Parts: sequence; C-alpha cells; structure tokens
Amino acid sequence: MHFASDNAGPVHPKVLEALAAANEGHVGSYGADPVTAEAVARIREIFEAPEASVHFVATGTAANVLSLASYAQPYHTVFCSDVAHIHEDECNAPEFYTGGAKLTLVPTEDGRMTASALRETIAAEESRGVHGPQRGPVSITQITERGTLYSRGDLTALCEVAKDFGLPVHMDGARFANALVDLDCTPAEMTWKAGVDVVSFGGTKNGLMGAEAVVFFDPAKAWEFELRRKRGGHLFSKHRYLAAQMNAYLEEDLWLELARAANGARELLQAGLSGMNDVSFAYEPSGNMMFPTFTAGDHRRLFEAGAVYHIWGGTLDGAADEARLTARLVCDWSTGPEAVDHFLDTLRG
Amino acid sequence: MHFASDNAGPVHPKVLEALAAANEGHVGSYGADPVTAEAVARIREIFEAPEASVHFVATGTAANVLSLASYAQPYHTVFCSDVAHIHEDECNAPEFYTGGAKLTLVPTEDGRMTASALRETIAAEESRGVHGPQRGPVSITQITERGTLYSRGDLTALCEVAKDFGLPVHMDGARFANALVDLDCTPAEMTWKAGVDVVSFGGTKNGLMGAEAVVFFDPAKAWEFELRRKRGGHLFSKHRYLAAQMNAYLEEDLWLELARAANGARELLQAGLSGMNDVSFAYEPSGNMMFPTFTAGDHRRLFEAGAVYHIWGGTLDGAADEARLTARLVCDWSTGPEAVDHFLDTLRG
Amino acid sequence: MHFASDNAGPVHPKVLEALAAANEGHVGSYGADPVTAEAVARIREIFEAPEASVHFVATGTAANVLSLASYAQPYHTVFCSDVAHIHEDECNAPEFYTGGAKLTLVPTEDGRMTASALRETIAAEESRGVHGPQRGPVSITQITERGTLYSRGDLTALCEVAKDFGLPVHMDGARFANALVDLDCTPAEMTWKAGVDVVSFGGTKNGLMGAEAVVFFDPAKAWEFELRRKRGGHLFSKHRYLAAQMNAYLEEDLWLELARAANGARELLQAGLSGMNDVSFAYEPSGNMMFPTFTAGDHRRLFEAGAVYHIWGGTLDGAADEARLTARLVCDWSTGPEAVDHFLDTLRG
Amino acid sequence: MHFASDNAGPVHPKVLEALAAANEGHVGSYGADPVTAEAVARIREIFEAPEASVHFVATGTAANVLSLASYAQPYHTVFCSDVAHIHEDECNAPEFYTGGAKLTLVPTEDGRMTASALRETIAAEESRGVHGPQRGPVSITQITERGTLYSRGDLTALCEVAKDFGLPVHMDGARFANALVDLDCTPAEMTWKAGVDVVSFGGTKNGLMGAEAVVFFDPAKAWEFELRRKRGGHLFSKHRYLAAQMNAYLEEDLWLELARAANGARELLQAGLSGMNDVSFAYEPSGNMMFPTFTAGDHRRLFEAGAVYHIWGGTLDGAADEARLTARLVCDWSTGPEAVDHFLDTLRG
Repeated sequence: MHFASDNAGPVHPKVLEALAAANEGHVGSYGADPVTAEAVARIREIFEAPEASVHFVATGTAANVLSLASYAQPYHTVFCSDVAHIHEDECNAPEFYTGGAKLTLVPTEDGRMTASALRETIAAEESRGVHGPQRGPVSITQITERGTLYSRGDLTALCEVAKDFGLPVHMDGARFANALVDLDCTPAEMTWKAGVDVVSFGGTKNGLMGAEAVVFFDPAKAWEFELRRKRGGHLFSKHRYLAAQMNAYLEEDLWLELARAANGARELLQAGLSGMNDVSFAYEPSGNMMFPTFTAGDHRRLFEAGAVYHIWGGTLDGAADEARLTARLVCDWSTGPEAVDHFLDTLRG
Repeated sequence: MHFASDNAGPVHPKVLEALAAANEGHVGSYGADPVTAEAVARIREIFEAPEASVHFVATGTAANVLSLASYAQPYHTVFCSDVAHIHEDECNAPEFYTGGAKLTLVPTEDGRMTASALRETIAAEESRGVHGPQRGPVSITQITERGTLYSRGDLTALCEVAKDFGLPVHMDGARFANALVDLDCTPAEMTWKAGVDVVSFGGTKNGLMGAEAVVFFDPAKAWEFELRRKRGGHLFSKHRYLAAQMNAYLEEDLWLELARAANGARELLQAGLSGMNDVSFAYEPSGNMMFPTFTAGDHRRLFEAGAVYHIWGGTLDGAADEARLTARLVCDWSTGPEAVDHFLDTLRG
Repeated sequence: MHFASDNAGPVHPKVLEALAAANEGHVGSYGADPVTAEAVARIREIFEAPEASVHFVATGTAANVLSLASYAQPYHTVFCSDVAHIHEDECNAPEFYTGGAKLTLVPTEDGRMTASALRETIAAEESRGVHGPQRGPVSITQITERGTLYSRGDLTALCEVAKDFGLPVHMDGARFANALVDLDCTPAEMTWKAGVDVVSFGGTKNGLMGAEAVVFFDPAKAWEFELRRKRGGHLFSKHRYLAAQMNAYLEEDLWLELARAANGARELLQAGLSGMNDVSFAYEPSGNMMFPTFTAGDHRRLFEAGAVYHIWGGTLDGAADEARLTARLVCDWSTGPEAVDHFLDTLRG
Repeated sequence: MHFASDNAGPVHPKVLEALAAANEGHVGSYGADPVTAEAVARIREIFEAPEASVHFVATGTAANVLSLASYAQPYHTVFCSDVAHIHEDECNAPEFYTGGAKLTLVPTEDGRMTASALRETIAAEESRGVHGPQRGPVSITQITERGTLYSRGDLTALCEVAKDFGLPVHMDGARFANALVDLDCTPAEMTWKAGVDVVSFGGTKNGLMGAEAVVFFDPAKAWEFELRRKRGGHLFSKHRYLAAQMNAYLEEDLWLELARAANGARELLQAGLSGMNDVSFAYEPSGNMMFPTFTAGDHRRLFEAGAVYHIWGGTLDGAADEARLTARLVCDWSTGPEAVDHFLDTLRG
C-alpha cells in the first residue's frame, strides 16, 4: 500500500537488463558511445523530430532548470503555475541555473493554467521598462502537480499566448508518458505541434533508475546546453548507462506500457473510491495521481494498516476523526491490484 | 588497448548485482531508505568517523563543487594546483556553485603542490584588504591529474599550511582508492588525520556506474550541503541506486581490489615501457595513470593497431616521426594483461 | 506641476555646499577619510546605536540588495509585500545579489503586510524539507510603495512574527524620513527598538544627490558587507562625497525639515483634493505620496496644463472621459505651494 | 606630498559648478533628462561614433564588469593581464557579474600583454571541448596597472589576435585620458579604430567625483546593458548629476587639460628622480604613475616628512636601511610643483 510517490517503486527489470547488456568493454566517455547514439536516434524518432537536440541527465530538476537556463536571461521572469514543481520543489534551482531570473506565478484552481490567466499574467509584467524583470519563457507541466491534464487544445492555447508575446515554451514532462497515454496522441502532437520548444522528457518516475531526456526542437540550442550541463556537474562520464536506460524505456514501447499500468492502477483505485459515500476528489484525476478527500478517522485506519502516502494541505495530528483531509495518492508501474484492493478494503473498514 | 580514461571501462558485475538486489518493492525516496542508511554507515566505518556527514552524488564534478561551495564564499578564492580538475575540466562549475569565487593557482612541476609553493601563494593573496578576494579553502587532488602521488607527509604539510591561515581543506579523491593502495594507509590517515576537512570520495572511475560520496568530517555542514545538493539538481529521487553502488563498492573491500587491479595494470605497463630505450616518463607514475614519452612514429603505429589514448600537451598531426610526444595512459580495474601486452608488443614493433 | 517622483526634484543647496566644503586637498580613498568618519558617527548617534555597522552606497537598490544578501542564503526565500520595490522595481537585483534566493510575496490590500498575513505566509514555506526554499529574512518597506504608513505597533507586530520564526528583519527605508516625521518617533523606535536588524536609510529621495546608508544594528555583519559592496562595484573611491551628502543631511536636522516640507506639500494637495466631490483615494495617504482617483477627463486637462505624474494601474489611452483612473502623486522637499495650487486649480477646471 | 592614488585628490571646481548648474527644477529621472542627452551626444562626438551606445555609472568597477558581462557567458573565460584591475582589485566582481565566468591570466613583464603571449594564452584555452571554459572577451587596460602604455600599434596587434579567434575586446580605460595625451591620438584611434568593442571611459581618477562612461561601438548591446545596470543597482535615479559631471569633463577639453596636468606632474617628478644616482624604475613610466626604486632609508625619511604613497611588492617593516624597495607614485590633476619639489628635496636629503 505504498502510494507516496512514483519515485518509491522499483526499476523495471528490462532496465536492469539493458544496463547489463551495455556493460561490455571500453567505449568513449561523456556520450561518445554507440548506446548514446542509439538513444538520441530513438528520441528523435518518437518525436518525429530528426533535427532535435537531445541530451540526457539523471534528475528531473536538472532537466527542467537546464532547459529554462537555455532560454531565460538573468533579468527575465519565467511564467509558470502557482504550484509548479520548479517553483515549489526545486529549492531555488531555477533561480540558481538562470543566474537569478524570477518566477512569476500564474494563479490556478487545480494546477492548470488557463490561457486567459496566462495572458493576463504575462501582460502585467514588463510594464515598467528597465525597472521590472523582462518576460522570459513559459513553463507548462503536463500532467500537473495536482494530477490534472491539459488537453491538446489547452496546450495549443497556452503556447499561442506565449507566441503572441514572442516567448519560448518549456514543458516539464516528468510524467510525460502518463499524460500521453491519457491523451492518446503522439509525442509530437503533445509538444512541438502544439508549440512547445523544449521538453523535459521524464523517465525516472515511470520505471527508470534515474534518466531524463531534454529535447530541444530547435537544434541551435545544442552546444550551449552541453556547456551548461557540464558546468552544472550533470554530464555523466559513463554516459552509456544513462542512455541504456532510455533505450530500454523506448524499446517496444515499454514506456507506454508502464504508464498504462500506472494510470490503470490509479483508475482502479479511483473507481473504488468513487463508489464510497464520503469520498470526494479535490481535483479531477488523470495520469497516475489523485487527491481524494475523506475523514481523518479513515486516514488513521489506513496508516495503521500500513498505507504510505502524504496528507495534502493539512495535518492529521490533532485532527478530529470526522475532519476531512485530502490524500495525495500516486501509483507507479509496479502498483499491483492487491495494493489497491487492500487500500480500498481498509478504507471500507 | 583502451587507455584513454578510467571512465571508459565497464562497471564491475558486483555493482550490477547490487542494483538488482536493491530493486525490490517500494522504499522512501530521496535517501530515506535502508540501502542509503547502510551506505552511510559503511562510509563512516571505513573512515573511522562515526559523526561524519555523508552524502551521495552521481558525478565527480558535483562532489567537488558542492564540497567547495560549502566552504567558499563568493568573495573568496580557492587555492588549487595549476592543473587541478576543478580548474581545467569542470567548465567553471566551481565558479558557478560558489556564486563566483575565484580559483588561485599554485604552480606545480608535476601536479603536486609543494607546501612552500602553497604557503607563498596563500600569503600573496588577501594583501589588498577589501579589493582582492579573501582566502578560501585549499583543494588537494590525490592522486593528481598527472598521476603523481602525495605522501602522507606531503598531505600533512599541505594541511598544516592551510591551518596556519585558518583555511579548510578539500580533497578531490576522484582516484582516492588508487592513491590509498599505493600509500598503504587507512582512509582516515589519508584524510582527517592529515588535516582534510571534506573529501570527494570517488567511485565512478573505479568500477561504479556513477556514484561518489562527499564526506564532511565536521557534521555541522550536513544540512547546508543537503540544500545545495537539491538546489544543484543533484538529489536523486531513487536514491537507493546510488547507495547500492556504494555498498557493493565497500563490501568485502571490492574498492581496494579494483584499485589494486588498475594500479597493477599500470605497473605492468610501466615495467614494460621502462625497459625500452627511448621511453621516458614526463611524471613519476603512481596509481593507475602514467605519461610516457616516445616518438611520433611509435604513436602512429600504436594508433594504427587500434590503441586508444590521448596525446598530452601536443599534437600528432604533422609531427615528424622522430618527434617525441607524451601519451596519457590510464588503466582501470578491467584492463587485462592482454591489452598491456598488445600495447607493449606493438610499441616494440 | 511635477509630481512623478521624489527623484525628479533638485538637490538641496546645503548638500552642494557640503560637497564643496569637502573638496579640499588629498584624503584617503575608499572611506578612509574624516568626512566618512563623521558621517558614521552621526548615523550612530541619531540611531542611538553606538556599535552599529554603517555603510554608504549611492542607490537605494544597492542598499536594499546588499542588506538582504547579508542575511539571505541562495536557498532562502525573502518575505516581502506583493508590491515591494525589491520585487517590482529592481529588475531581479535581489535574486542577483543573494545568488538566487527567491522572494515570497505576502498579499496586501494597500502595500502594508498585516502580521497575520505575514505569519501565514511564513508558516506555509519550509514545509517541504529540502525541496522548497528555506525561510530567509523579512523585508518591510516604510513608508510603503502605496504611500501607506506602518504604525509603531504594526512594525513591532511584524518583527515579532519574524522573530517567532527566528528570521532577521530588513527595513527598506527609501522614504525613512517621510515616515519618521509622520510617526513622530525616534529612528531607534522605528527600527531596532521595534525589532529591525538592518535598515536601508534613504537620502536620495529626500534631497540628496545619491546617497543611502545601510545600518546593521549587529556590528558582526560589517566585514562581509564591505566585501559584498566592493564585489558589487558599489564601493566609491572618492568616498568623502557620499559621506559629505549624508553629513549635510543630518546637520541641524535638515533631513527632517526636508521630509516635513515634502509631507506638508502632500497634505496640502490632499486637503484640496479631499474637498472635491468626485475625488477618492485608493489608499490612505501618508508621507509624501498619495493615489487619488478621478476622471480621465480631469487627467487629460491636467496633462494638457503641463502636470507630470503617473497613471496607476491603468491607461489613459482610449479611456472614456468619465472613466475613473488613479494618479500616483509624489511630492518632494522642493514642491512649492504654487505647484499644488496650480494642480488643484486646474483640476477644479 | 600625497602620491598614494589619483582617487585621493579633490574634484575639479568646474565639476562642482556643473552640478550646481544642473540643480534646477524637476526633470525626468533615470536618465530621461536633457543633461544626460547632452552627455551622450558629447561622448559620441569625441569618439566619432554617432551610433555608439553610451551609459553612465559611478564606479570604475561597475563600468568594467557590466561591460564584460555584456560579452562573457558564464561558461566563458576572460583574457586579461596577470595584474589587471579586474583580476586583482575588484573582489570577484567580474565573476559575480558574468555569472561565474573565469579569468585567464596572460603573463606580463610590466603589465602589458604582448600579442604573442595573448595569442598563446588564448590558443591554450578551449582545447578540451565541453570540459574547459570557452573563450570569451579580451580585456586590455590602457594605461596599465604598472603605469605602462600600449602604443597604437600594440593595441591594434592585440585586437587582431582577439579577432583571429572571433573574440570581442574590452578596454579598461580608468586612466583613458592619461593614455590619450601620451599617445597624442584621437579617442577613436585608441579604441574602435584599433579594434576595441567596448570601453570603460574613466572620469573619476581624472577630476570627477564619481562618473564613468561605458561606450559600446555596437549599439545592439544597449538594452541588455540597461537591464544589467539596473539589476546591478547601478542605475542612478537622479541621473542628471552623473551626466553633469561628464559634461563638465568634456567641455572645452577639460579632461585632456586635467590629464596633461597629472602627466606633467609625473614627468616633473620622474625627471627629478632620474637625476639621482641610486634611483631606478621598475617599469617604464607613462601617464600619471611610476614605480621608482630606492633605499628603505630614503623611504623612511620621506614618510617621516609626511609623504603618502604605497610601497610596492614588499614591506618597509624590518627592512635594512640599504634594502631597495619600490614606491608606487601616482599624480593627479591637482598635484602641484610644490609637492613634487618637496618630495625630491626630501629624497635628496
């Protein structure tokens, strides 16, 4: 009953197999190896972007902030949602990597920026000449930190706002695969065809050990990114082991299979919860994450039974048994139906 | 015949086994897992430092610059050798992570700073009050970028100079194990007993996939380091896989075994080269690295036979066959006697 | 009829006289001169803080961001109002000088943070361990960017909130004198007696050419500040001319006289405006600044008559004559009754 | 007998007059005033550069580091002499403003880089791909920190080296006027006609209170500079007082007159010293600065008689009377013949 994070589960066995398969003999370091070349080619292929500049790093924070630093000058502000990971959970890494750019928060109800809120927020900046920050990139998280999903129309509309102001668009795709299988579209449709310029293409939360790709659809950004990655200490010397993870991920659509498994576990759990009288949802669930609300007494019974998850926006300590609190429940590829059933059974009491 | 780098060889099989063994079920992310707890305990034990603050990162650059940033203020200068990795090969990462501190280079003959040169260099700084940078940490690389080794007496003397000025000491131990087996001393003797405050304890160059430990002997640095690591994008969510590598490394002294294998290959190669008339050594070899000098014609024959290594401080292009050029030859744990023999036989013609 | 800014008026003649008086012979540079020593002593005296660390810079932005950088680590967030100058009008200078710290905005109605809003905002941060920024200094602007005034009780309450969380307090006192004469208290009462740790003591907006003091009530910050000032390029070589301005400012309470003149002009203007039927005030006026609201037609008549000021939070272009728009009107020491009368007469039509 | 620095003397009276003349009524702040427009036009005129982007700041460090930051990316290294002010005397301000770029030092004998040494130093960088810093701007100090002068041919040769590598050239002209009158050429000839891209045009050391111009011959740099200046806290609100200084400076060639006076005082002093048996010069004097060497006993007699200057590269404390030590003697526009005679007479004994 571990629903705390999609970082908590194991790596898919095929990933370990790929690491072992790559573990032969001497190859060039720092990416000058055939495993890396293969991974780059695969990424370009699935994105239908033969010219894309593709780079690998080990963490999602690195992918996000190196991407942003390629577009944001120190005197810029980055536009993102008020609950964006880059704002809330990266300990000032965007400010660090951009040399001190600011983040301007777009208010949201459920983690999703609306095109009009984005437009209003952008318009309000850069009205003070040299005194305020200048407008920089827009960052969109798909799926959002609240488990909500942008439709393809939503994405296109957000990108159009950015383009109206001449601003580049970054997508934080830490849960890219989970979104994609929900949208049932192609990677190209969810990114460059909608207007995205660079995407953090996540793997770690979906069965890899620690590997993310940064994909620039404009190849002109390649060399600067390489320098910034090295300067950030994020260039792997034994680079083949990052690339091998990515190859296993993309081989025979493993990545989509894993996302379907995670999303499926969430759907199963959601279906069970939806049938209960006193359970409501703080946000509309999608992907592999949801935020159901129920009583403190129920939370206590779950924790006593060994469930692991986070209470969201509140605290269980001292709460009356009938107080309603929200859980953040995250499934991963390895979340089995037993865990889901155990959770639901416990909740039913 | 791959002698280009100790980053080029494979990961030791026991490391892959440890990854597989760690790959069970759900655990806490970001280091809150038992595999990490075990790795921390092991590091403390081998360093005889039960209070040490121990942290894991995936790259040597991250280990170095996060360590330095914990001691160097932006208005400081870091003292290091004129060929230090932090100066030559980290694309300004130290300047980035320290917020703009400077590096002051101590001139060396062979990569090793002498205590008197270090003292003279430190004394020359901070003579201009607020106008120049202030004195910051001293960084020592063991073994050096030229394959040379500091004796325990050398290390103690350097640390004493630093302490005379009240400065903390960092050790870049990317090849810590290679040095240790040469010195035949304990990790404690090569670090805190000599006066080192923080060490980048390398694993990647010695058979790991990508794992380094940062060890502060003063535990007061722990929390700040955690924040700086997160802010640098270097905190692994699936942290157990960094720790599992380190556990395999330290289990039954695998790390020392691997270093002895790499150093042994270097000794074998050196012995063969030493017996040749026209081979000299640019620096006194130690550890797993050496810089032999021989003719361009010989280099050409080796490259034609498939040898892979770097020409050092010169270029083969257009050189006369009798011109003497230096090779940088690096062995790793997997360098077999066949590769050594093949190299020597080819050189003998 | 120039009400655009207190930066637009002339320097008081006594300041020019003081510059001329200081312009004799050779003295030590970089602050090692008797004029500077006198200015430091005067500041300590008026603040009743004989141990205070006192430094001079030429701009308010420099004063603010160097002060903040002395307290905020790069992984911190600074708490300030949602309309703070450091947030809106310093083009990311706080982020630059702190090495990438964040600003967390406390929502306000009129530029003034309430103690409860501050407490709530601080409490909400640092709830995510290493993932979010850590709590850093609180910055209070007195008088605020909306021309509103914190009472002594307000200041004490805000500082108490900060102290409850162990956070230092910075005061942006760009209009320190304007606030002080309104509150009719001592500089000590408005700062360290209320709990302020460091103040940007403004002079430029109140009759100086370009001189601000930074006053740390804890002298331990002195040397670090000196280094950060130099590193920011803000150490004046001919330092006596900064200090001479400050001496003229403090001599025979010129600073209070000038603030009373500016505040008096505002009161006169306010009194006239208050008597008009259709004029309202967006915020409660104090100090030397106010935000009256009246019709676009009236604004147009004023601009045609030569008035200079900013329309606030809207635009006159295309507005219907009867649309109501807010003016930002700022008086300075040199604002004469003729300008006020001319403005009022024009408005009366 | 004050020869410690050209920062120690008074401001020229015409500068104070210009400040008083500018001190009339209300004008636009932040540079939107007619005094500033006039100063910009004057600078463009004397540089024969009608399109140049001209900006004013109050300190030489600000001028230098903001200029460099407009060209140097964080992953670059700046090439400068091993005694450059930006290296030795700006407390890491270049590293700060560039976001962590490095400085690579070109070895010099007397503060002057030779074209061949510059070429060799540049060639040696950027040989390690992504691992080392990339080549950034070249910075030339005219006259150098050792009082030596680059000829026009020297400047052209250095700029040609930079252009061969595609690198921009910055000139630190803190003593621009002193060099110009020695070279007897036009400002255009000493800058853009030789290949300089941006110059820190100093005024503070030559009779101003605190005003320097940054002149980009490529106007495309203008807006970015404005943003970086604001973000550095270097934009003056009462900007007319910076500009008024510059206008006084350029009016009727006051700047050249002041430089001739300072250089003349140096020549007089040098002539007197040259006639003495035991006086030698560490570097070939030019401009307003020289480094004569004579005995410790003589230094002691001078200091006892009230002379003020710095001992260079050594210390008088404990030196034997016959030990030879070098003085750094700097003249300014106000250095009178009496001070020179008094110095020479005292030295003669």
